[in-house]
Amino acid sequence: MSAQFKRVALIGLGLIGSSLSHVMRQKGLAEHISGYARSAATRAKAVEIGLVDSIHESAAAAVQDADLVVLCVPVGACGEVAGEIGPSLKHGAIVTDVGSVKTAIVRDVAPHLPGHVHFVPGHPVAGTEQSGPESGFAELFVNRWCILTPLPDCDPAAVKKLEEFWRACGSNVETMSPEHHDLVLAITSHLPHLIAYNIVATAADVEEVTNSEVIKFSAGGFRDFTRIAASDPIMWRDVFLNNKDAVLEMLGRFSEDLSVLQRAIRWGDGETLVNLFTRSRQIRRSIIAAGQETAAPDFGRRPAKN
Amino acid sequence: MSAQFKRVALIGLGLIGSSLSHVMRQKGLAEHISGYARSAATRAKAVEIGLVDSIHESAAAAVQDADLVVLCVPVGACGEVAGEIGPSLKHGAIVTDVGSVKTAIVRDVAPHLPGHVHFVPGHPVAGTEQSGPESGFAELFVNRWCILTPLPDCDPAAVKKLEEFWRACGSNVETMSPEHHDLVLAITSHLPHLIAYNIVATAADVEEVTNSEVIKFSAGGFRDFTRIAASDPIMWRDVFLNNKDAVLEMLGRFSEDLSVLQRAIRWGDGETLVNLFTRSRQIRRSIIAAGQETAAPDFGRRPAKN
Repeated sequence: MSAQFKRVALIGLGLIGSSLSHVMRQKGLAEHISGYARSAATRAKAVEIGLVDSIHESAAAAVQDADLVVLCVPVGACGEVAGEIGPSLKHGAIVTDVGSVKTAIVRDVAPHLPGHVHFVPGHPVAGTEQSGPESGFAELFVNRWCILTPLPDCDPAAVKKLEEFWRACGSNVETMSPEHHDLVLAITSHLPHLIAYNIVATAADVEEVTNSEVIKFSAGGFRDFTRIAASDPIMWRDVFLNNKDAVLEMLGRFSEDLSVLQRAIRWGDGETLVNLFTRSRQIRRSIIAAGQETAAPDFGRRPAKN
Repeated sequence: MSAQFKRVALIGLGLIGSSLSHVMRQKGLAEHISGYARSAATRAKAVEIGLVDSIHESAAAAVQDADLVVLCVPVGACGEVAGEIGPSLKHGAIVTDVGSVKTAIVRDVAPHLPGHVHFVPGHPVAGTEQSGPESGFAELFVNRWCILTPLPDCDPAAVKKLEEFWRACGSNVETMSPEHHDLVLAITSHLPHLIAYNIVATAADVEEVTNSEVIKFSAGGFRDFTRIAASDPIMWRDVFLNNKDAVLEMLGRFSEDLSVLQRAIRWGDGETLVNLFTRSRQIRRSIIAAGQETAAPDFGRRPAKN
C-alpha cells in the first residue's frame, strides 16, 4: 500500500500510540512519523525502539507540517494538548484522537482548533491491560471496531480519509454521534472496568480471607476480572470523570439488577437465578460469532506450567 | 505410575467427571472406571468416547465395588445421590465430591453414608465455561489447587490417599475447614460469577443500546465477563443457594465499595479513583507470579482473524 499520509504526528506514545506506529510501519501508511510524549523517558524509549522518525520536545513542534495528527493521551489531557498544538497545525490537516469518551473530547478539543483543520474524533475499541511505549503491537486493531464521531459540519472527504486509514490498520469502522458513542461504551467498556476495579478492591479487603488465598484460588473466576482491572489508572480516571452521566446511569441499572439477584439468593428463588443465568450463554456465543472473542475454552489461555 | 485405585466410580460425567476420566487414563490412576449420569444421552456419549469402562443405569450400581467414588454432580444433587449410593458402597471406600460449596455438602451427604466409608469432601478449583461429557480434558487440573475439607474424625490415611490422587492429576492440594472454604470461594469464585452474570443481564436490557452494539463493541472490556457468565446455570444456582450467607456477606461488601466509587464519580473525586485503580495491578501481578494466570496480554487470546 502506498503511504496514505506524508507525515503523521503521534501525540502520546503509550499502548495506542506505539501500536499505531507499528501498524503504520508494517503497512507503509506514513512516510514520516513524528512523535511527542510528555515524559523524557518515554521519548527516549520511542527513539530507541524506532517508534518515530523524529521526536520533539513539545506537542506543538511534533505537529508541524503533519497531515494527520493523532492525540493518544488520556481523555483529560486532550484539551490542554489541543490548546498547545492549535496554532502550529498545518492548513487542511486531519486531527483525530483515540479517547474512550467522545462528547467531552468534542467539548474540550474543538474550541482550540483553527477552522482550517478537519477534526474527526475517533475511538479504536481495542486495547490490552498493558501500557507504555513498549506495549504496542501492529495487530492490536485487527478485526476490532473503530468508532468515528464526526460533527455535522465536518468535511466528508476528511472523514473518508480517516476511515480508510483505520481500515488499513485492520479495523472495521462505524460512525455515530458522540452522545450515542458514550452511551454504548458506558455499558460495553466503562461499567465493566468499574466493576472489575471494584471487585478486586473488595477482595483485597476481606480480612477473614488472606490475600494469598485470594491469589491462590483466583482460578475459580476472580482472575478473569483482574485483567481489565490492571489497566492504566489515569486513563480510566479520566474516562469515568468525563462520561459521568452515562456511567452513573448504567451503574444504577447494574445495581438494581444486582438487588434482584441478591433477593433471589436470600429467598431461595432458584428459578429467577436459572432464568437469568441461561440468557448469558447466548450473548457470549454471539460475541464469538461476531469475531470479537475466541471460542477456545478459558480464552485459550495456555495450560499452566507444572 | 501404577494404578492408585482398582475401581473408581464417577457419578456425573460433565466437565469435571470427564476431565477426571481423561487424566486417570493418561496417568493410569485407575484399573477400571465405572460411570453413571442421569441423562441417557450423556451415558451413551460417555461410552462412545471411552470415558468409562462400564456404564450403569443407576448411581447405586456404578459405585458397587468401587474403592473411590467421586460425586461430580451439581451441589444441590449430592444429597439425593448420597442417599441412593449409601447402601451399595464398598467397605472402606473413599467417597469425595467436587462441589464448589462444602458446608452444604457435609450437611447433605454425610448423614447418608455408612460408618465404614471415608468421606472426604473436595473441591478442585478448576473449570472452564464449557460443560457436558465432551468438554473435559486431561490438563484441567494441572497447577490448579484442589481443596479438601476433611471432618475432624476422618481417617488421615484416607485423606492422604485422596491428596495423592489429586497430586497425580497435576493439582496442588490444600486442606481447610468447610466453613473457611466457603468464605474463601465466596470472594474468589462465587461473587465474581454473580457479578458477571449480572452485568451481562444489565447489558442485554439497555434499550437505548442495541444488543448488536453490545456484541460489536464488547472488546472494550465487556467480553471478559461473558466467559464465566457462560458457565452452567444449574451448577451455579446450586452454588448460590447453598452458600447463601457467605455470598450475601461478600455481595454486601462489594455494594458498599461500589457506592464509594459511585460517589467519587458523581463528585469528581479523581484521587479516590486513582488510588483504588492503582492497587489492582499488583494483585494481578501476584496471581501471575503464583502461576494461576498467564502473563500474556489479553489472556494470550489469539489475534482475531481477518
